[in-house]
Amino acid sequence: MMHMDEAEADPQSRPERTARRVPDRDSTPVGPTRGDASVDSALRRNGWGFADSGFYANAEGVAGFNGGRYPLGGSTFPELLAWMEGALGTRLDQRERHEFAYPPRVPPPLTDPSLIADLKTILAEEQLCTDSLVRLRHGHGHALEEIYAINYVQLSRVPDLVVYPSTEQAVVELVAVARRHNACLVPYGGGTNVSKSLACPPAERRLIVSVDMSRLNKILWIDPVNRTASIQAGAVGCAIQDELKRHGFTLGHEPDSSEFSTLGGWIATLASGMKRSRYGNIEDLVLDMRVATSLGAVSRQSAGPRESAGIDVRQCMFGSEGTLGIITGAVVRLFPTPTIQRHDSIVFPTFEDGFAFLYAMRDEASPPASMRLLDNAQFQLGLALRPVASGLLHRLRRIRNSAIARLHHIDPEQGVLCTLLYEGTRQEVALQRKSVRKASRRFRGLHAGAANGRRGYELTYTIAYLRDFALTFHIVADSFETSVSWSRALAMCTEVKARIRAEFERLALPGRPLVACRITQIYGTGVCVYFYLAFHHATLADPVAVFSHLESCARAEVIRCGGSISHHHGIGKIRAEFLPSVLSPAAVEFASRVKQAVDPDNVFGIDNQRVAVPQAPETLG
Amino acid sequence: MMHMDEAEADPQSRPERTARRVPDRDSTPVGPTRGDASVDSALRRNGWGFADSGFYANAEGVAGFNGGRYPLGGSTFPELLAWMEGALGTRLDQRERHEFAYPPRVPPPLTDPSLIADLKTILAEEQLCTDSLVRLRHGHGHALEEIYAINYVQLSRVPDLVVYPSTEQAVVELVAVARRHNACLVPYGGGTNVSKSLACPPAERRLIVSVDMSRLNKILWIDPVNRTASIQAGAVGCAIQDELKRHGFTLGHEPDSSEFSTLGGWIATLASGMKRSRYGNIEDLVLDMRVATSLGAVSRQSAGPRESAGIDVRQCMFGSEGTLGIITGAVVRLFPTPTIQRHDSIVFPTFEDGFAFLYAMRDEASPPASMRLLDNAQFQLGLALRPVASGLLHRLRRIRNSAIARLHHIDPEQGVLCTLLYEGTRQEVALQRKSVRKASRRFRGLHAGAANGRRGYELTYTIAYLRDFALTFHIVADSFETSVSWSRALAMCTEVKARIRAEFERLALPGRPLVACRITQIYGTGVCVYFYLAFHHATLADPVAVFSHLESCARAEVIRCGGSISHHHGIGKIRAEFLPSVLSPAAVEFASRVKQAVDPDNVFGIDNQRVAVPQAPETLG
Repeated sequence: MMHMDEAEADPQSRPERTARRVPDRDSTPVGPTRGDASVDSALRRNGWGFADSGFYANAEGVAGFNGGRYPLGGSTFPELLAWMEGALGTRLDQRERHEFAYPPRVPPPLTDPSLIADLKTILAEEQLCTDSLVRLRHGHGHALEEIYAINYVQLSRVPDLVVYPSTEQAVVELVAVARRHNACLVPYGGGTNVSKSLACPPAERRLIVSVDMSRLNKILWIDPVNRTASIQAGAVGCAIQDELKRHGFTLGHEPDSSEFSTLGGWIATLASGMKRSRYGNIEDLVLDMRVATSLGAVSRQSAGPRESAGIDVRQCMFGSEGTLGIITGAVVRLFPTPTIQRHDSIVFPTFEDGFAFLYAMRDEASPPASMRLLDNAQFQLGLALRPVASGLLHRLRRIRNSAIARLHHIDPEQGVLCTLLYEGTRQEVALQRKSVRKASRRFRGLHAGAANGRRGYELTYTIAYLRDFALTFHIVADSFETSVSWSRALAMCTEVKARIRAEFERLALPGRPLVACRITQIYGTGVCVYFYLAFHHATLADPVAVFSHLESCARAEVIRCGGSISHHHGIGKIRAEFLPSVLSPAAVEFASRVKQAVDPDNVFGIDNQRVAVPQAPETLG
Repeated sequence: MMHMDEAEADPQSRPERTARRVPDRDSTPVGPTRGDASVDSALRRNGWGFADSGFYANAEGVAGFNGGRYPLGGSTFPELLAWMEGALGTRLDQRERHEFAYPPRVPPPLTDPSLIADLKTILAEEQLCTDSLVRLRHGHGHALEEIYAINYVQLSRVPDLVVYPSTEQAVVELVAVARRHNACLVPYGGGTNVSKSLACPPAERRLIVSVDMSRLNKILWIDPVNRTASIQAGAVGCAIQDELKRHGFTLGHEPDSSEFSTLGGWIATLASGMKRSRYGNIEDLVLDMRVATSLGAVSRQSAGPRESAGIDVRQCMFGSEGTLGIITGAVVRLFPTPTIQRHDSIVFPTFEDGFAFLYAMRDEASPPASMRLLDNAQFQLGLALRPVASGLLHRLRRIRNSAIARLHHIDPEQGVLCTLLYEGTRQEVALQRKSVRKASRRFRGLHAGAANGRRGYELTYTIAYLRDFALTFHIVADSFETSVSWSRALAMCTEVKARIRAEFERLALPGRPLVACRITQIYGTGVCVYFYLAFHHATLADPVAVFSHLESCARAEVIRCGGSISHHHGIGKIRAEFLPSVLSPAAVEFASRVKQAVDPDNVFGIDNQRVAVPQAPETLG
C-alpha cells in the first residue's frame, strides 16, 4: 500500500487538485497563416504541397525529388520512370512532356458594393481579397479533374471574393451578412479534398465568398487534467501536433494530408487518420464543436465526456462538407505523447496472406497505431522510389532462388508489404510487437525491418506529389477509397481491378492501366481499402472524361461488391451520383430536408451531396 | 513460421473462405413476445420488473425479496428498514403503509373507424388492442412522477390504441396510414425510460397509437466472420445476449435495464451499458439502422465498417426519443464471448481516494469491462441489503480499531466501495488485474474480494425494485445522471448534494434527504455520475411536485458545475426545460427545424425535447 504522503507527492494523481488550463489566457496560433504573402508563397498553387518540393525528371530521364523538407529530398530514383513504363505498358518520352500551362484564364469576379461595405464592418481591408489566382486556388481541391483543369484548361466558376476572418465571432457575423445580401459562403480549410467539394456550382449566379479559415488557427486552451483542447477550425494538422507535443500530448489524428488539412476540414469530411486503431477517427476525437450557421452560432455551454442530449446538431456537421455551416472550432480529446514509437515491416508471399494477417490482428486490445498492407504493384512502386537500385526489390530478386525465399515463398511479382507503426507505453509496444510476431508467423510473413517500415510512412507525404509529376508525362492518375466487410474485401479488390481492366480493354485504350490497392485501416468488422488508378493517355482528346468514366465504373463495382460509397473522402460532387444506389429514397430525402430546413436561403450553396432529381419518364422520352 | 498447411488448418483465419451467416434462412426470435397474455402477465404493470419479484416487509418489520429470479430472492434483510430510517431521519411505520391503489381511472380511448379499417389492411385483429390497462402501461415509463401517478393518482392522457406489428415493413406502412389519417405514433420498446419520454402530451387531440415493438424481436442473421448481426428493434437486451452467447458472441451492451429494454430503445435514448469501457456505448456498436419515417423507410444497401457518406440520417436517430421515426432494426458489431469473467471489489477510505484510483485507471488499453465507485451512502445501502447482519458493514465496524483498519484508514462512515468486472482473454484479464492492483495500492485501496464485487453487480437488477417498495412507506425516490470532466467531478458531487440538502432545509421538509452518488463510467476526459435522491414525505400533500422541484434544483446545480444535461437517460420531458441552458439558441432551433423538416405532420408527436418558446417580455409583464 502506498501511504498518504506518497499519493500526495504526485499531484497529477488527484485531478481535482491540478485543474488548470494552459495557456490560461493567451492562445497559441499554430501553423501558417494564409493571406500572408510569405506563407502563401510556400505553397504550390497549381498542384499538391509545398512549392519547393516535388518530383522532376532530368535530361537523362532520371526522376528525382526536390527540396529539403522530406527524407527523399535531393534523391534521384533510377528505376522510377522505367518502372512506370513497364506498369503502364508505354514509353514515357522526355521530349514530349505535357508541361503545365498554369495559370489558366480565371473568370472575373462578380461584385456587390453593398455586400463589400457590410463585410468591411466586420473585416479589415486586408482581410478581403479578389486576386485572380487566390480566387482560383479557393475554387478547387485535388481531384484529378481539378488539377488537370487548372493546368491545362480552366475552371468555369471560382469564388468571387476570398475573406480571411480572424475570430469565430466574425464568421458568425459573416453568415448574417451573406444571408442579408443573398451571397453564397464556402468554407475553405486546407483545400486538400479530392471530392470536388470546393468546386463552385457553374450555375451559381450569386456572389460566392470563400471563407478562408487559415487565420482561425489558434489552440485556445489545453486542459492537461481532462486531456482536452479547444482548437480553432483553421488550425493545420501538423502544426496542431507540433504544438500539442510541446505540452506532452497528441491528438493522434494524422490523415495523409496532415501537412495542409485542417481540423474544420476533418470534421466536415469525416476524416480518418493513419493511427485510428489507437486514437480513433475524427468523430471519436471531437467532443464538441462550434459552428456558424444560418440560424446563428451553434454551440453549447460545456461538453461532457459523452452526452445524450436529444437530436444532436453536432452529429449533422460530421460529413456535411460545407453545406450546413462553417465549423469555427472544436473541443478535442488528447492523449499523452507515446513513450515509444517504432516502425516495422513484414513481407508476405501474397496479398491474401497479408490480409489474413490483418484479420488475425483485428482483436488486439492494444493494436499497433497503424498497419497498412500494400499490394504487389504498390510495393513495387515503393521499391521503384528507392534512391538506389540496390533496394529491397533488387535484394528480393537476388534471393529469389535462395533458401530464405523458398522458405517464405516470396516471389517479387507476388509479394506484398505490410508497414507497421507501434506506439504507446513500453509495455503496450512490447505487447503489440509480440502479437504481430505471432500473427505474421502464421501467414508466412518475413520481417523486413524497421527501416522499410519507416520509409513506407515517410513515402506517404512525398508520394502525394507523384500524381502532378505523372500528369506532365501524359499520365492521369488518382486514388479512391472505400470500406468493406472482411469477408467481401478480397473479392472486392479483385473484382474492382478486373472491372477497370475490362473497361479499359473494351474502350481499346492505349497501354494498360495501373490498378493497385492498399488496406489502410482495420476495424473489427472490416477494412478501409484505397485503390489507385493510372494510365497513359497520350492519344486521348479528353483523358479526364475517360478517367472519370473508369472511376465511375470502379465505384459502381465497389458498391456491387458490398463496399461503401466512401470511407473518409466524403461525397462532394464526385460521388453524389452514387448516393441513391446506397441509400433508400427516404434517406436521401431526409438529408436533403435537413439541409433545406437549417439553411433555407442556401447560404452554404456549395452544392455538395446534391442528388439530381430523376427526370420523370415523359421528360426523358 | 507456420507452414501453409497449419494456416489452412484453421479455416476461421481466412475470412474470405468462411464467409457465412447463421442462421442463413430462419431468423431467431429472442425474448418475450408481448401482446401474448402469458408473457404479459410475467411483467409487473404498475411498477418495475417481473410480477413475481419485488421487495416486501413482513409483519415484524423485516424486509425481504420475493421470487426465484435473482440471487437475493427468498432472502430477508434485517438491517434494511432500520438503515432507511436512519438515513431519512424518520420512522417507517408498518401500520401506515401507503399501499398502491392501482389501477387508476384510465381515460377512454379516442376512436377513428376509418383509421382502424386501414390499420386492419396491415395488421390482424389480434395485433390491435384497446384494453385500458394495456393502453395505460404504454403511456408511461419509470420516472417517479409516472409510477406515483398510476398508483395513487391517474394519467390524464394515454395512448388510444396499442398495435403489435410483427414485420418491419408493417411499421413502414403504419406510418403512411397514420400520416394519412392524421394520427400520432409513439414507438414503445421496453417502457423503461425515466425521462417521461412515453408520457402522452395532455393536449394531443389526435388519436395516439402506441407501436409496441415486442414482436419485432428477431435476430435476422449473425455474421461470425465480420462479427455483425442484424437485429430487430424490439429485441430485449438479456434475450439478445443469451442468443448471441449460443453462437459464441456478445454485444457487450448491458444497461441496468437489460432485462426489459430493447435495441430500438437504446438507440432512441443513446444508451450506455455498464461494460462500455470494453465494448463502447450504443453509438459505437450500431453500424447501421433501419427507420420507418414520415418520408418512408430509411435504410441503406449495406453498411461499411465506417463511412463518410454525407449528412448521416442515422446520426440524427441516436437520442431522437421517438420524435423522428420508429427504429425497426439495426446492424450491430459483435465481440467474441470473453474467455474469462471475474468480479472484484476494493474498499477505499474516502470517495476522493476511490475517485483518484479511477482517474489513474483511465489510460488502460485493456481496462476492466466495468468499474463502479459507490459513495458511502450507496455502500451502506448495499450492506443493508445483506441477508444477514454479519456482512461487511458489521465486519468493518468490528475492525474499526484493528490494525488493518488503522493501516487502511477505513472508517465505516467514510469508506466507499469500488466494484469491478474483468472480462476478456486470459492475458487481458491478467493485465487488467495487474493494473488495478497497482493503482488501488496508490490510493489506500483494501481488496474486498470477488464475492463483494459480484454481489454489487447482482444488486443492480434487484435494487431497481427498491423505489416502488419505498413508495409504500411514503418515501419518494429517483435517480438522475450526468457526465462531467474529471477536474470538476468531485466538486460537482459535493455541490449537488449540498444544494439538495440546502433546498430541503429551506423548504423545512420533514426528516432529511438521502442523497447518494456513484460513478458508473469512466472516459479519458471525465466520468458518468449517478445521483440518488430519496425522502420521507408523510406530511406532504404533493410529494412528487416537491421531488421534481428538488431534482430541478439539482440539475441546475449539475449544469452550473459543468455537468451535462444527461449522460444516457436522455431528455424526454423531464429535462427539456434545461436544453436552453446548455445549448445556444441556434442549436435548439437547429434540432427543432430538423424535426419539422422530416416529420412535417408531426406523426411522431410524442413531444420529447420540446423547448417552450420563451414568452416575449411584454407578455410576461
